[in-house]
Amino acid sequence: MKIIIIGASGTIGKKVTEALQGKNEIITAGSKSGDFQLDITSPESIERFYEKVGPFDALVSTTGSGHFGPLASTTPADFKKGIESKLLGQVNLVLIGQHHINPKGSFTLTSGILSEDPVVNGVNLGTINGGLNSFVISAAIELQNGVRINAVSPGVVEDSPSYFEYFPGHEPVAMDKVANAYVKSVLGAITGQVIKVF
Amino acid sequence: MKIIIIGASGTIGKKVTEALQGKNEIITAGSKSGDFQLDITSPESIERFYEKVGPFDALVSTTGSGHFGPLASTTPADFKKGIESKLLGQVNLVLIGQHHINPKGSFTLTSGILSEDPVVNGVNLGTINGGLNSFVISAAIELQNGVRINAVSPGVVEDSPSYFEYFPGHEPVAMDKVANAYVKSVLGAITGQVIKVF
Repeated sequence: MKIIIIGASGTIGKKVTEALQGKNEIITAGSKSGDFQLDITSPESIERFYEKVGPFDALVSTTGSGHFGPLASTTPADFKKGIESKLLGQVNLVLIGQHHINPKGSFTLTSGILSEDPVVNGVNLGTINGGLNSFVISAAIELQNGVRINAVSPGVVEDSPSYFEYFPGHEPVAMDKVANAYVKSVLGAITGQVIKVF
Repeated sequence: MKIIIIGASGTIGKKVTEALQGKNEIITAGSKSGDFQLDITSPESIERFYEKVGPFDALVSTTGSGHFGPLASTTPADFKKGIESKLLGQVNLVLIGQHHINPKGSFTLTSGILSEDPVVNGVNLGTINGGLNSFVISAAIELQNGVRINAVSPGVVEDSPSYFEYFPGHEPVAMDKVANAYVKSVLGAITGQVIKVF
Protein backbone atom coordinates (compact mmCIF):
# COMPACT_ATOMS: atom_id res chain seq x y z
CA MET A 1 0.00 0.00 0.00
CA LYS A 2 1.31 3.46 -0.91
CA ILE A 3 0.71 5.75 2.06
CA ILE A 4 1.36 9.49 2.16
CA ILE A 5 1.96 11.04 5.59
CA ILE A 6 1.75 14.82 5.69
CA GLY A 7 3.34 16.25 8.81
CA ALA A 8 5.47 13.11 9.22
CA SER A 9 8.15 14.91 11.23
CA GLY A 10 5.72 16.17 13.89
CA THR A 11 5.10 14.71 17.35
CA ILE A 12 2.19 12.58 16.16
CA GLY A 13 3.38 12.14 12.56
CA LYS A 14 6.62 10.46 13.67
CA LYS A 15 4.74 7.82 15.65
CA VAL A 16 2.22 7.21 12.88
CA THR A 17 5.06 6.79 10.38
CA GLU A 18 6.73 4.23 12.65
CA ALA A 19 3.45 2.36 13.12
CA LEU A 20 2.71 2.12 9.39
CA GLN A 21 6.15 1.46 7.93
CA GLY A 22 7.41 -2.03 7.17
CA LYS A 23 4.79 -3.62 4.95
CA ASN A 24 3.86 -0.35 3.23
CA GLU A 25 5.48 2.16 0.90
CA ILE A 26 5.59 5.33 3.00
CA ILE A 27 5.94 8.76 1.44
CA THR A 28 6.63 11.48 3.97
CA ALA A 29 5.85 15.12 3.39
CA GLY A 30 5.89 18.37 5.30
CA SER A 31 6.36 22.09 4.97
CA LYS A 32 10.13 21.80 5.37
CA SER A 33 11.07 18.12 5.71
CA GLY A 34 10.17 14.71 4.31
CA ASP A 35 10.41 13.17 0.85
CA PHE A 36 8.32 16.01 -0.57
CA GLN A 37 7.59 19.55 0.58
CA LEU A 38 4.26 21.31 0.22
CA ASP A 39 2.40 24.30 1.63
CA ILE A 40 -1.06 23.07 2.67
CA THR A 41 -2.36 26.65 2.74
CA SER A 42 -1.88 26.81 -1.04
CA PRO A 43 -4.21 24.75 -3.27
CA GLU A 44 -1.65 25.15 -6.09
CA SER A 45 1.08 23.66 -3.91
CA ILE A 46 -1.20 20.72 -3.00
CA GLU A 47 -2.03 20.10 -6.67
CA ARG A 48 1.66 20.10 -7.64
CA PHE A 49 2.41 17.75 -4.74
CA TYR A 50 -0.14 15.17 -5.89
CA GLU A 51 1.07 15.40 -9.48
CA LYS A 52 4.62 14.62 -8.34
CA VAL A 53 3.63 11.79 -5.98
CA GLY A 54 1.21 10.09 -8.38
CA PRO A 55 -1.67 7.78 -7.45
CA PHE A 56 -1.72 6.60 -3.84
CA ASP A 57 -3.78 4.39 -1.52
CA ALA A 58 -3.93 6.34 1.73
CA LEU A 59 -3.24 9.83 2.92
CA VAL A 60 -2.68 10.63 6.60
CA SER A 61 -2.59 14.28 7.62
CA THR A 62 -1.14 15.19 11.01
CA THR A 63 -0.49 18.78 10.05
CA GLY A 64 -1.87 22.29 10.31
CA SER A 65 -1.76 24.93 13.01
CA GLY A 66 -4.28 27.17 14.72
CA HIS A 67 -4.25 30.35 16.78
CA PHE A 68 -3.86 29.77 20.52
CA GLY A 69 -4.64 32.85 22.57
CA PRO A 70 -7.29 34.67 24.61
CA LEU A 71 -10.67 35.19 22.96
CA ALA A 72 -10.66 38.83 24.12
CA SER A 73 -7.59 39.67 22.03
CA THR A 74 -8.21 37.33 19.08
CA THR A 75 -8.66 39.32 15.87
CA PRO A 76 -10.48 38.24 12.70
CA ALA A 77 -7.03 37.97 11.06
CA ASP A 78 -5.70 35.67 13.82
CA PHE A 79 -8.75 33.50 13.51
CA LYS A 80 -8.65 33.29 9.72
CA LYS A 81 -4.99 32.29 9.69
CA GLY A 82 -5.75 29.14 11.70
CA ILE A 83 -8.80 28.35 9.57
CA GLU A 84 -6.66 28.56 6.44
CA SER A 85 -4.05 26.19 7.91
CA LYS A 86 -5.46 23.35 10.00
CA LEU A 87 -9.04 23.45 8.63
CA LEU A 88 -8.87 24.47 4.96
CA GLY A 89 -5.39 22.96 4.53
CA GLN A 90 -6.66 19.52 5.48
CA VAL A 91 -9.97 19.99 3.64
CA ASN A 92 -8.09 20.91 0.47
CA LEU A 93 -5.88 17.81 0.77
CA VAL A 94 -9.16 15.90 0.32
CA LEU A 95 -10.91 18.15 -2.23
CA ILE A 96 -7.87 17.94 -4.52
CA GLY A 97 -6.73 14.48 -3.44
CA GLN A 98 -10.07 12.83 -4.29
CA HIS A 99 -9.04 13.18 -7.94
CA HIS A 100 -5.67 11.44 -7.39
CA ILE A 101 -6.44 8.67 -4.87
CA ASN A 102 -6.80 5.02 -5.92
CA PRO A 103 -10.16 3.21 -5.60
CA LYS A 104 -10.72 1.91 -2.05
CA GLY A 105 -8.17 4.43 -0.76
CA SER A 106 -8.56 6.43 2.44
CA PHE A 107 -8.02 9.87 3.92
CA THR A 108 -7.28 10.27 7.64
CA LEU A 109 -7.28 13.81 9.03
CA THR A 110 -6.42 15.15 12.49
CA SER A 111 -8.85 17.17 14.60
CA GLY A 112 -8.66 17.19 18.43
CA ILE A 113 -10.42 17.24 21.77
CA LEU A 114 -11.03 21.01 21.82
CA SER A 115 -14.06 20.65 19.56
CA GLU A 116 -16.06 19.43 22.54
CA ASP A 117 -13.92 19.88 25.68
CA PRO A 118 -12.69 23.48 25.52
CA VAL A 119 -9.75 25.12 27.25
CA VAL A 120 -9.01 28.82 27.71
CA ASN A 121 -7.20 30.20 24.62
CA GLY A 122 -8.48 27.35 22.46
CA VAL A 123 -11.42 28.90 20.61
CA ASN A 124 -9.75 28.91 17.19
CA LEU A 125 -8.56 25.30 17.45
CA GLY A 126 -11.90 24.19 18.87
CA THR A 127 -13.70 25.69 15.89
CA ILE A 128 -11.26 24.11 13.45
CA ASN A 129 -11.57 20.69 15.06
CA GLY A 130 -15.37 20.84 15.08
CA GLY A 131 -15.34 21.76 11.41
CA LEU A 132 -12.98 18.90 10.54
CA ASN A 133 -15.11 16.35 12.39
CA SER A 134 -18.22 17.41 10.49
CA PHE A 135 -16.26 17.51 7.23
CA VAL A 136 -15.37 13.82 7.43
CA ILE A 137 -18.93 12.88 8.42
CA SER A 138 -20.23 14.72 5.36
CA ALA A 139 -17.50 13.81 2.87
CA ALA A 140 -17.79 10.09 3.68
CA ILE A 141 -21.25 9.87 2.08
CA GLU A 142 -20.03 11.37 -1.21
CA LEU A 143 -16.53 10.00 -1.85
CA GLN A 144 -16.55 7.70 -4.91
CA ASN A 145 -15.01 4.29 -5.72
CA GLY A 146 -15.04 3.06 -2.15
CA VAL A 147 -12.73 5.81 -0.91
CA ARG A 148 -13.03 6.28 2.85
CA ILE A 149 -12.40 9.20 5.22
CA ASN A 150 -12.02 9.51 8.99
CA ALA A 151 -10.65 11.96 11.53
CA VAL A 152 -8.52 11.12 14.54
CA SER A 153 -9.35 13.43 17.46
CA PRO A 154 -6.60 13.16 20.09
CA GLY A 155 -6.50 14.70 23.52
CA VAL A 156 -3.30 16.40 24.68
CA VAL A 157 -0.57 13.84 23.96
CA GLU A 158 2.02 12.59 26.43
CA ASP A 159 4.90 13.61 24.13
CA SER A 160 3.89 17.30 24.28
CA PRO A 161 4.47 18.15 27.97
CA SER A 162 4.85 21.85 27.16
CA TYR A 163 1.09 21.91 26.43
CA PHE A 164 0.03 20.34 29.73
CA GLU A 165 -0.27 23.66 31.57
CA TYR A 166 -2.82 24.82 29.00
CA PHE A 167 -4.91 21.67 29.48
CA PRO A 168 -5.44 21.63 33.27
CA GLY A 169 -6.90 18.35 34.46
CA HIS A 170 -6.76 16.77 31.02
CA GLU A 171 -5.35 13.24 30.96
CA PRO A 172 -2.36 13.07 28.59
CA VAL A 173 -2.94 10.39 25.99
CA ALA A 174 -0.41 7.63 25.30
CA MET A 175 1.29 8.00 21.90
CA ASP A 176 0.79 4.31 21.11
CA LYS A 177 -2.93 4.73 21.49
CA VAL A 178 -2.92 7.77 19.20
CA ALA A 179 -0.84 6.00 16.56
CA ASN A 180 -3.19 3.03 16.72
CA ALA A 181 -6.17 5.24 15.86
CA TYR A 182 -4.49 6.18 12.57
CA VAL A 183 -3.67 2.53 11.88
CA LYS A 184 -7.33 1.65 12.46
CA SER A 185 -8.45 4.28 9.96
CA VAL A 186 -5.86 3.38 7.29
CA LEU A 187 -5.83 -0.41 7.51
CA GLY A 188 -9.42 -0.93 8.72
CA ALA A 189 -12.65 -0.40 6.83
CA ILE A 190 -14.54 2.30 8.74
CA THR A 191 -15.58 5.58 7.14
CA GLY A 192 -17.17 8.83 8.26
CA GLN A 193 -15.94 8.30 11.81
CA VAL A 194 -14.34 10.61 14.34
CA ILE A 195 -11.94 8.34 16.23
CA LYS A 196 -11.66 9.93 19.66
CA VAL A 197 -8.47 9.22 21.60
CA PHE A 198 -9.21 10.80 24.97
CA MET B 1 -33.48 45.04 26.05
CA LYS B 2 -31.75 46.21 22.87
CA ILE B 3 -31.59 43.26 20.48
CA ILE B 4 -29.80 43.22 17.13
CA ILE B 5 -31.05 40.70 14.58
CA ILE B 6 -28.72 40.14 11.63
CA GLY B 7 -30.49 38.44 8.73
CA ALA B 8 -33.85 39.68 9.99
CA SER B 9 -35.48 39.50 6.55
CA GLY B 10 -34.63 35.82 6.04
CA THR B 11 -36.94 32.83 6.50
CA ILE B 12 -35.81 32.24 10.08
CA GLY B 13 -34.91 35.85 10.87
CA LYS B 14 -38.46 37.07 10.19
CA LYS B 15 -39.94 34.63 12.69
CA VAL B 16 -37.31 35.39 15.32
CA THR B 17 -37.98 39.10 14.90
CA GLU B 18 -41.71 38.54 15.40
CA ALA B 19 -41.08 36.40 18.48
CA LEU B 20 -38.82 38.94 20.17
CA GLN B 21 -40.53 42.22 19.31
CA GLY B 22 -42.98 43.90 21.67
CA LYS B 23 -41.16 44.26 24.96
CA ASN B 24 -37.74 44.78 23.36
CA GLU B 25 -36.02 47.36 21.19
CA ILE B 26 -35.30 45.45 17.98
CA ILE B 27 -32.63 46.57 15.53
CA THR B 28 -32.79 44.71 12.24
CA ALA B 29 -29.82 44.37 9.93
CA GLY B 30 -28.89 42.56 6.75
CA SER B 31 -26.81 42.75 3.63
CA LYS B 32 -29.49 44.71 1.75
CA SER B 33 -32.41 45.34 4.10
CA GLY B 34 -33.19 46.24 7.71
CA ASP B 35 -32.43 49.29 9.85
CA PHE B 36 -28.71 48.91 9.10
CA GLN B 37 -26.76 47.23 6.31
CA LEU B 38 -23.50 45.36 6.76
CA ASP B 39 -21.34 42.85 4.94
CA ILE B 40 -20.52 40.07 7.42
CA THR B 41 -17.62 38.89 5.23
CA SER B 42 -15.84 42.19 5.97
CA PRO B 43 -14.47 42.78 9.50
CA GLU B 44 -14.30 46.51 8.67
CA SER B 45 -18.01 46.54 7.78
CA ILE B 46 -18.85 44.71 11.05
CA GLU B 47 -16.79 47.21 13.06
CA ARG B 48 -18.52 50.19 11.41
CA PHE B 49 -21.89 48.56 12.04
CA TYR B 50 -21.27 48.19 15.79
CA GLU B 51 -20.00 51.75 16.01
CA LYS B 52 -23.21 53.04 14.43
CA VAL B 53 -25.54 50.85 16.52
CA GLY B 54 -23.83 51.49 19.86
CA PRO B 55 -23.92 49.22 22.93
CA PHE B 56 -26.50 46.43 22.84
CA ASP B 57 -27.78 43.57 25.00
CA ALA B 58 -28.24 40.71 22.55
CA LEU B 59 -27.20 39.84 19.04
CA VAL B 60 -28.99 37.17 17.04
CA SER B 61 -27.44 36.07 13.77
CA THR B 62 -29.54 34.12 11.27
CA THR B 63 -27.30 34.92 8.35
CA GLY B 64 -24.49 33.56 6.21
CA SER B 65 -24.41 31.23 3.24
CA GLY B 66 -22.43 28.15 2.27
CA HIS B 67 -21.65 26.23 -0.90
CA PHE B 68 -24.18 23.53 -1.75
CA GLY B 69 -22.95 21.12 -4.40
CA PRO B 70 -21.32 17.74 -5.08
CA LEU B 71 -18.09 17.01 -3.22
CA ALA B 72 -16.55 15.75 -6.47
CA SER B 73 -16.82 19.15 -8.13
CA THR B 74 -16.29 21.38 -5.07
CA THR B 75 -13.14 23.47 -5.47
CA PRO B 76 -11.01 25.01 -2.70
CA ALA B 77 -12.39 28.40 -3.81
CA ASP B 78 -16.03 27.22 -3.51
CA PHE B 79 -15.29 25.85 -0.07
CA LYS B 80 -13.50 28.96 1.17
CA LYS B 81 -16.31 31.24 0.04
CA GLY B 82 -18.78 29.50 2.36
CA ILE B 83 -16.28 29.45 5.23
CA GLU B 84 -15.82 33.21 4.86
CA SER B 85 -19.57 33.83 4.95
CA LYS B 86 -21.52 31.59 7.34
CA LEU B 87 -18.56 30.54 9.53
CA LEU B 88 -16.13 33.47 9.73
CA GLY B 89 -18.92 36.01 9.22
CA GLN B 90 -20.70 34.84 12.37
CA VAL B 91 -17.44 34.29 14.28
CA ASN B 92 -16.37 37.85 13.49
CA LEU B 93 -19.72 39.22 14.70
CA VAL B 94 -18.63 37.80 18.09
CA LEU B 95 -14.88 38.58 17.97
CA ILE B 96 -15.65 42.22 17.23
CA GLY B 97 -18.98 42.37 19.06
CA GLN B 98 -17.46 41.23 22.38
CA HIS B 99 -15.97 44.72 22.66
CA HIS B 100 -19.35 46.44 22.11
CA ILE B 101 -21.86 44.26 23.97
CA ASN B 102 -23.26 45.22 27.38
CA PRO B 103 -22.46 43.12 30.50
CA LYS B 104 -24.77 40.08 30.77
CA GLY B 105 -25.49 40.34 27.06
CA SER B 106 -25.74 37.38 24.70
CA PHE B 107 -24.81 36.20 21.24
CA THR B 108 -26.96 33.63 19.42
CA LEU B 109 -25.59 32.19 16.18
CA THR B 110 -27.13 29.80 13.65
CA SER B 111 -25.55 26.49 12.69
CA GLY B 112 -27.67 23.56 11.45
CA ILE B 113 -28.33 19.82 11.33
CA LEU B 114 -25.73 19.05 8.62
CA SER B 115 -22.92 19.09 11.18
CA GLU B 116 -24.00 15.64 12.32
CA ASP B 117 -26.67 14.38 9.91
CA PRO B 118 -25.20 14.89 6.44
CA VAL B 119 -26.90 15.10 3.06
CA VAL B 120 -25.40 14.83 -0.41
CA ASN B 121 -24.06 18.24 -1.56
CA GLY B 122 -23.84 19.46 2.05
CA VAL B 123 -20.16 19.04 2.90
CA ASN B 124 -19.37 22.76 3.03
CA LEU B 125 -22.39 23.61 5.20
CA GLY B 126 -21.75 20.58 7.41
CA THR B 127 -18.20 21.76 8.05
CA ILE B 128 -19.35 25.31 8.74
CA ASN B 129 -22.05 24.16 11.17
CA GLY B 130 -19.66 21.87 13.04
CA GLY B 131 -17.19 24.73 13.38
CA LEU B 132 -19.88 27.09 14.68
CA ASN B 133 -21.08 24.59 17.29
CA SER B 134 -17.56 24.15 18.64
CA PHE B 135 -16.98 27.91 18.49
CA VAL B 136 -19.82 28.63 20.91
CA ILE B 137 -18.75 25.80 23.24
CA SER B 138 -15.24 27.31 23.36
CA ALA B 139 -16.14 30.99 23.39
CA ALA B 140 -18.60 30.54 26.26
CA ILE B 141 -15.80 29.77 28.74
CA GLU B 142 -13.92 32.99 27.89
CA LEU B 143 -16.51 35.70 27.32
CA GLN B 144 -16.25 38.35 30.05
CA ASN B 145 -18.80 40.23 32.22
CA GLY B 146 -21.39 37.48 32.16
CA VAL B 147 -21.81 37.62 28.39
CA ARG B 148 -23.35 34.40 27.05
CA ILE B 149 -23.23 32.62 23.69
CA ASN B 150 -25.25 29.79 22.12
CA ALA B 151 -25.95 28.36 18.69
CA VAL B 152 -29.32 27.30 17.35
CA SER B 153 -28.98 24.28 15.08
CA PRO B 154 -32.18 23.83 13.08
CA GLY B 155 -33.14 21.01 10.76
CA VAL B 156 -34.67 21.81 7.39
CA VAL B 157 -37.48 24.27 8.21
CA GLU B 158 -41.09 23.98 7.11
CA ASP B 159 -41.04 27.42 5.49
CA SER B 160 -38.30 26.35 3.03
CA PRO B 161 -40.08 23.67 0.95
CA SER B 162 -37.68 24.19 -1.96
CA TYR B 163 -34.98 22.53 0.18
CA PHE B 164 -37.02 19.40 1.01
CA GLU B 165 -35.81 17.45 -2.04
CA TYR B 166 -32.20 17.87 -0.86
CA PHE B 167 -33.08 16.53 2.61
CA PRO B 168 -34.76 13.20 1.79
CA GLY B 169 -36.45 11.68 4.81
CA HIS B 170 -35.67 14.68 7.02
CA GLU B 171 -38.59 15.91 9.12
CA PRO B 172 -39.26 19.58 8.40
CA VAL B 173 -39.16 21.57 11.61
CA ALA B 174 -41.98 23.89 12.70
CA MET B 175 -41.02 27.58 12.50
CA ASP B 176 -42.50 28.26 15.95
CA LYS B 177 -40.16 25.70 17.46
CA VAL B 178 -37.17 27.25 15.70
CA ALA B 179 -38.10 30.78 16.81
CA ASN B 180 -38.53 29.50 20.36
CA ALA B 181 -34.94 28.22 20.43
CA TYR B 182 -33.68 31.75 19.76
CA VAL B 183 -36.00 33.14 22.45
CA LYS B 184 -34.59 30.57 24.91
CA SER B 185 -31.05 31.66 24.14
CA VAL B 186 -31.75 35.41 24.29
CA LEU B 187 -34.15 35.60 27.24
CA GLY B 188 -32.90 32.55 29.18
CA ALA B 189 -29.63 32.08 31.01
CA ILE B 190 -27.89 29.18 29.27
CA THR B 191 -24.47 29.54 27.67
CA GLY B 192 -22.13 27.37 25.60
CA GLN B 193 -25.07 25.34 24.31
CA VAL B 194 -26.00 24.06 20.88
CA ILE B 195 -29.79 24.18 20.87
CA LYS B 196 -30.81 21.48 18.42
CA VAL B 197 -34.19 21.88 16.74
CA PHE B 198 -34.58 18.62 14.87
